[in-house]
Amino acid sequence: MSYSSLPSSIPWYDPTPVENTVEHLSESLQATGEEPQKTEAPTIAERDNLLKRESGITSSSPMRLRMEALIKEHQKKIVAELEKLDGNKFKVDTWDRPNGGGGITCVLQEGDIFEKAGVNTSVVYGTLPRAAIARMRANHKALDPDVDSLEFFAAGLSLVLHPHNPMAPTVHLNYRYFETANSDGTSNAWWYGGGCDLTPCYLFDEDAIHFHKTIKEACDKHDKTYYPRFKKWCDNYFSNKHRGETRGIGGIFFDDLDEAEKDREQLFAFVGDGLETFLPSYMPIIQRRKDMQYGEQEKQWQQLRRGRYVEFNLVHDRGTSFGLNTPGSRVESILMSLPLTARWQYMHEPAKGSKEDRLLSVLKAPVDWI
Amino acid sequence: MSYSSLPSSIPWYDPTPVENTVEHLSESLQATGEEPQKTEAPTIAERDNLLKRESGITSSSPMRLRMEALIKEHQKKIVAELEKLDGNKFKVDTWDRPNGGGGITCVLQEGDIFEKAGVNTSVVYGTLPRAAIARMRANHKALDPDVDSLEFFAAGLSLVLHPHNPMAPTVHLNYRYFETANSDGTSNAWWYGGGCDLTPCYLFDEDAIHFHKTIKEACDKHDKTYYPRFKKWCDNYFSNKHRGETRGIGGIFFDDLDEAEKDREQLFAFVGDGLETFLPSYMPIIQRRKDMQYGEQEKQWQQLRRGRYVEFNLVHDRGTSFGLNTPGSRVESILMSLPLTARWQYMHEPAKGSKEDRLLSVLKAPVDWI
Repeated sequence: MSYSSLPSSIPWYDPTPVENTVEHLSESLQATGEEPQKTEAPTIAERDNLLKRESGITSSSPMRLRMEALIKEHQKKIVAELEKLDGNKFKVDTWDRPNGGGGITCVLQEGDIFEKAGVNTSVVYGTLPRAAIARMRANHKALDPDVDSLEFFAAGLSLVLHPHNPMAPTVHLNYRYFETANSDGTSNAWWYGGGCDLTPCYLFDEDAIHFHKTIKEACDKHDKTYYPRFKKWCDNYFSNKHRGETRGIGGIFFDDLDEAEKDREQLFAFVGDGLETFLPSYMPIIQRRKDMQYGEQEKQWQQLRRGRYVEFNLVHDRGTSFGLNTPGSRVESILMSLPLTARWQYMHEPAKGSKEDRLLSVLKAPVDWI
Repeated sequence: MSYSSLPSSIPWYDPTPVENTVEHLSESLQATGEEPQKTEAPTIAERDNLLKRESGITSSSPMRLRMEALIKEHQKKIVAELEKLDGNKFKVDTWDRPNGGGGITCVLQEGDIFEKAGVNTSVVYGTLPRAAIARMRANHKALDPDVDSLEFFAAGLSLVLHPHNPMAPTVHLNYRYFETANSDGTSNAWWYGGGCDLTPCYLFDEDAIHFHKTIKEACDKHDKTYYPRFKKWCDNYFSNKHRGETRGIGGIFFDDLDEAEKDREQLFAFVGDGLETFLPSYMPIIQRRKDMQYGEQEKQWQQLRRGRYVEFNLVHDRGTSFGLNTPGSRVESILMSLPLTARWQYMHEPAKGSKEDRLLSVLKAPVDWI
């Protein structure tokens, strides 16, 4: 199929499950320029803009505005901490969507600590066609099936950090909120998704334990079932199925959390704690690994593991493939998740009993760290 | 979806078009161990083995055996020429399939000329379930719709060469034959697919013209419409749609060529000429580029282009994704096509009017080279 024969509308009727496709939704939609349906009533983007101008964002603002404020606040804080650690500044690209929303892409490349680091937020206002609504109803019964289209809103923060030092793990985080709006601007269906996971090249048990423990503590404050359920979900999702290996040593992952799970305020608080937990879960690890000694062999192993990271993101990640298959997507924001460099070596096998071999055995059979 | 919940049968009912999925078919099926249906009559694998033992392979042998002989002969010849050029030997892995067929994977890694080179043949005997037959009938009316399963045969040669020198282009070739068998061992439906395409990092018009001209001459001997049709098919297929760029400067690509196109002997002769044309189309180019001077900047640009090669193969190539999603596939044979090293740099843009920029403009709007 040629590029020009791709559908010019957004492929909402993508047959893959909706799970995780929202991660890159906002980046993908940046340049599509699809217009919200013109109706008598103001769009939710117009309503939200007016509200922001008139009264700012408070705890009684619509969840859309509160989520936008939350992710931007955490983006700022995380970027500031990472800049302090690395000693170099992020490049900041701000972009607007013509009909409401936009994004802030922050990338630090070839820093002192980080080979490549991206911390992105994005906010999208758009319109869901009938077919997409029908499909999403499978997971969200609140969606009104009797309308031709619905305005929607999506906002999320995505972060991937690839350090130089092979002893220091790559980390990924994403939290996102999605809602559809009734014609009077009130929320129709809504849900949250996200998580955070660690991908080491060399396994330090104390790092794995610290990472999982910090996240579990944040989960436990909200629901004791969250950590065990979302830890398993993470191992299942971030898996290079073709190699029978997980991408890394996990963390948590969840999607489609709506009123069937908890009320919206409770889930918003949980997502807030997930974002809040990022720095304490990762900073102590990067601090103690960033200056460790390593040689050529360790660097090569890291490059091979980077190759596996690329395989997962390009072959299996539904958000990435959804984004890349959406005409007019902001490809550079989506692919900021890829490492600066990667390597594929035919039939590479670590020596039995080596540190590299031990990592592989854990990736082939995920471990309960706590 | 977890690894263990993948279907244990082969996903023949994959919803993507069949086009190009046969490229990695044989590698993917290596370890699945699916059994041909046990019937009174001998399987085609058993018949073919007997025939080979009794009378060797001649021009009156079944096409299956002639195709197998053809690809192995060309593999041997191409590997020998590449070893002479590089000065290093390929690593040769031979594998058998329990119920007939097998493969020869030849890989040369970190040679003097080639960073990574793979020349693979594979032969598969297996059984197509009813659903797969129904799907394939869309392209091949000869397929009997009234059977529960059909024995099939697939054989092909795949080749990818990534040279060290950024001035020397990557080249890819694949030719394959597919048939289904009636219960008496005679051919039911059959078709050919394949092609050959060039991916330079720096564009030398004389190389592009030589490559296309050599291939066009081979095509013209068989049908004057082949080159223009298959050149266009190649540009359309090998396209990083998400970037609006072709992978390289093309060549030819075709699939599903059956009796609706030409008779089988004529197509076999065409594919034989395609294989024969490989060395004269590529060797003069690698000869004149392999020792050209280059610096750090050229090497970095090559690494970025390698990244695009990875993007195409992992995101868009239907054969690769079909292979990787087939449980038990020989992943290392499928991914030998990936470069040894690759790079992703956020928002890289070559200077206007530079050599790098000129390549991009050709990839964005494919050129008629002859």
